[in-house]
Amino acid sequence: MRSTELAERIGASCEGGDVELSEVASFTEAAAQSVVFVEHSRFLSGALASGAGGIIVPVDSEIANARGKALLWTRNPRLAFALAGEALARSEAQVGQVNASAIVAPSAEVHATCRVDELSVVGAGASIGARSHVGPGCVIGPGVVIGEDCNLVARVTVYSGTSMGDRVTVKAGAVLGGDGFGFVPDPATGRFHKFPQIGRLEIGNDVEIGANTTIDRGALDATVIGDGVKLDNLIQVGHNVRIGRNVVVASQTGISGSTVIEDGAIIGGQVGLGDHVLIESGVILGSQCGVPSKKVVRGKGVVFWGTPARPLGEYLKELATLARIARKK
Amino acid sequence: MRSTELAERIGASCEGGDVELSEVASFTEAAAQSVVFVEHSRFLSGALASGAGGIIVPVDSEIANARGKALLWTRNPRLAFALAGEALARSEAQVGQVNASAIVAPSAEVHATCRVDELSVVGAGASIGARSHVGPGCVIGPGVVIGEDCNLVARVTVYSGTSMGDRVTVKAGAVLGGDGFGFVPDPATGRFHKFPQIGRLEIGNDVEIGANTTIDRGALDATVIGDGVKLDNLIQVGHNVRIGRNVVVASQTGISGSTVIEDGAIIGGQVGLGDHVLIESGVILGSQCGVPSKKVVRGKGVVFWGTPARPLGEYLKELATLARIARKK
Amino acid sequence: MRSTELAERIGASCEGGDVELSEVASFTEAAAQSVVFVEHSRFLSGALASGAGGIIVPVDSEIANARGKALLWTRNPRLAFALAGEALARSEAQVGQVNASAIVAPSAEVHATCRVDELSVVGAGASIGARSHVGPGCVIGPGVVIGEDCNLVARVTVYSGTSMGDRVTVKAGAVLGGDGFGFVPDPATGRFHKFPQIGRLEIGNDVEIGANTTIDRGALDATVIGDGVKLDNLIQVGHNVRIGRNVVVASQTGISGSTVIEDGAIIGGQVGLGDHVLIESGVILGSQCGVPSKKVVRGKGVVFWGTPARPLGEYLKELATLARIARKK
Repeated sequence: MRSTELAERIGASCEGGDVELSEVASFTEAAAQSVVFVEHSRFLSGALASGAGGIIVPVDSEIANARGKALLWTRNPRLAFALAGEALARSEAQVGQVNASAIVAPSAEVHATCRVDELSVVGAGASIGARSHVGPGCVIGPGVVIGEDCNLVARVTVYSGTSMGDRVTVKAGAVLGGDGFGFVPDPATGRFHKFPQIGRLEIGNDVEIGANTTIDRGALDATVIGDGVKLDNLIQVGHNVRIGRNVVVASQTGISGSTVIEDGAIIGGQVGLGDHVLIESGVILGSQCGVPSKKVVRGKGVVFWGTPARPLGEYLKELATLARIARKK
Repeated sequence: MRSTELAERIGASCEGGDVELSEVASFTEAAAQSVVFVEHSRFLSGALASGAGGIIVPVDSEIANARGKALLWTRNPRLAFALAGEALARSEAQVGQVNASAIVAPSAEVHATCRVDELSVVGAGASIGARSHVGPGCVIGPGVVIGEDCNLVARVTVYSGTSMGDRVTVKAGAVLGGDGFGFVPDPATGRFHKFPQIGRLEIGNDVEIGANTTIDRGALDATVIGDGVKLDNLIQVGHNVRIGRNVVVASQTGISGSTVIEDGAIIGGQVGLGDHVLIESGVILGSQCGVPSKKVVRGKGVVFWGTPARPLGEYLKELATLARIARKK
Repeated sequence: MRSTELAERIGASCEGGDVELSEVASFTEAAAQSVVFVEHSRFLSGALASGAGGIIVPVDSEIANARGKALLWTRNPRLAFALAGEALARSEAQVGQVNASAIVAPSAEVHATCRVDELSVVGAGASIGARSHVGPGCVIGPGVVIGEDCNLVARVTVYSGTSMGDRVTVKAGAVLGGDGFGFVPDPATGRFHKFPQIGRLEIGNDVEIGANTTIDRGALDATVIGDGVKLDNLIQVGHNVRIGRNVVVASQTGISGSTVIEDGAIIGGQVGLGDHVLIESGVILGSQCGVPSKKVVRGKGVVFWGTPARPLGEYLKELATLARIARKK
């Protein structure tokens, strides 16, 4: 892609050489076809000394000699670099091909531009949209619907009853749409009987799901993951959970059944949400905090910490108070 | 299954039409062959308006017009619905068949009624009982023993040295019987040497094991999972742990080596149990609580919370006290 | 291996019969070719009564009649037993063989003494050193470098850009070198764009990685796991993390991006480390503790507990103080 076109795609203004760019890179790995980025002026000399053909720079940079490199000026270099990564990744041609060792049911509809890798299994009636990639060792259950430009990296399991939109990335080992954890005790015997887990899992567009993360289907209805949600590795999402748009969740967090997380919430790592919790839009939950069952947490941009989760200032004051008292005793 | 027979199987008394029922369902998905359930009278009109052929209802329901549906009266509709789900699932005929792409060692004993799916591997001398199902992409190690009516859903790994009873469900990505985490430091070098992990893993009947959950074999002896135990997703069970009957453990809980959990304990999500802990029968551990090494927790039906875990009332009183003091400062 | 040779390998002095020993075992499983160990004199009679051909015993043991067994005297029987397990495991001949169902790219360099098991995939240009084992169902990405004597047990995923040294064990379901979790918000839309995750993962020698553990590659540079590191199951290691030599980390701990853990630190289970944390050499972090972003934790041999992590004595004093105050109210 020409540097002028890339600049347009990422909202930057281009100056200096008009060069061909095909990848993002770090300073040390950069070559003529690479674009790098500079967030602070103190890194500028490093970028100029690198082999990169293009540099994304802050609008207020002072550059005497661009050394023939294309300069892409922007107010938000980090965002521009992310957008450049997306733009250049998409321009990689996806070779449509089903590996001979993959086992695709005759009734599955796999678009001609899809790539299905070694030893993957695609069940009866499943549907996979244009340019999507099913990496090696995946298991796609019967009737699963996968949109366009999706990437199931490797060894992903998708149970029957799951659908996902476009541009969804699922990393290795993730398990999508498995039975939820619901049991009914029989008081007479002390035994637990499985409550039916026959619902669906609906995943929106532009979702990223981390390695070895597990998302359960609904019990009778659906578990819903909204557009733009980003889930890190080793996260658990229980049955009937509803996650709104552009929610970000860090690693090892657990979300219990029927909990609702509204748009734009940010959730740290190792957070625990009880069942039937409501996390309102824009809330920020600090790592390791816990929200007991049925609680509502609200406050756009407010940070919560501790178990039970409370506003950060309150929690820190409690910690400081306790430390002071304990020291006196 | 006729509604009269189903009623008998789930301990309900049947009334109204005698219809054929083959599945449990939600109101919205229900068709003539479906049975739904009503837990509170306020949901009754929804059930009657649904397409369901049968409804499980509380004994004290007032129903003027059953609209031709079979009514299954019971004191515990939720339990009856769970039992109905089990009864109807079992009546699904299991087609015994080993997929041509599965690799089964000649010395493995796979019952003629088993189904072994695509690209699974069954090792030498392994044994799989009647009507059990090995889903796609599983790896069953040499000598593993799997009972009857088990279901290894997909991509399950079972190491050599593991045995399981009947009616065990193992969800995708679980790893059973791997080496435990035991090392001996060499003070002279600071290096850690692996303590032999050559024991076994013994799993009882009617156990459910969640997606991506890991259970280690014993170091020299056995790790033991009792009958009726239900483990959620992403749980860690260390070497030599012994879990009694009908214990329920929620997601992301970690159980360290040699810990014992007695019958009927209920353990929340993200709980951490140190090594050599004893959780006595009937204890309830709240989510995220922690029990340090070698501690004993007792009290049938008593709820514990916090780290170190203490009775809920005590913990809440401490939280309230601290909050009050901090506000005054 | 003769008992005299084994004694030499494990730093013990041998006495009694010179016998052939080929495995470590528990008392109950021990046979003539087995070596067992005794840590306290009260277990001595059990060892002598077992079928073992050899016993590792403390130097101060009093043994009147060795019953023809080889006695291996040492100051540290537990370490000697671990070393015996390692010595005897390595003497097992590794049969070099690529299973017919494995798919190995023609350009991959797999040493003639490697074993590659059923249905594993080895990508283009990957390299696997002498005597290494790739168990069933693994996915080794293009260009991955695996050293000598490694063991990828089963269903391991190794992404492109990963290298590991010699004698590395990776347990089932682990995911190595996946994309890290880094996104840049676009303030104009509220959407998150993926920051490029194009770095590497470098794993040293003698590392053990637990089942279903996930380790992300660096964003632009490398994630580095030092020699002798032992990681338990279900651990998350974020991008650009650097872990020093001989660090031990228990199950379900999460290590956020760019955090550094120095040599010899010991980290309990379910610990959470924020991003850009520094854990200095020899620190001990108790289970479930948490270290907020950018904090430095120091103190060789000092135990920390709680969130935010503080020295154990301080934390226990705070707990005791709070309990005392709450009881009075």
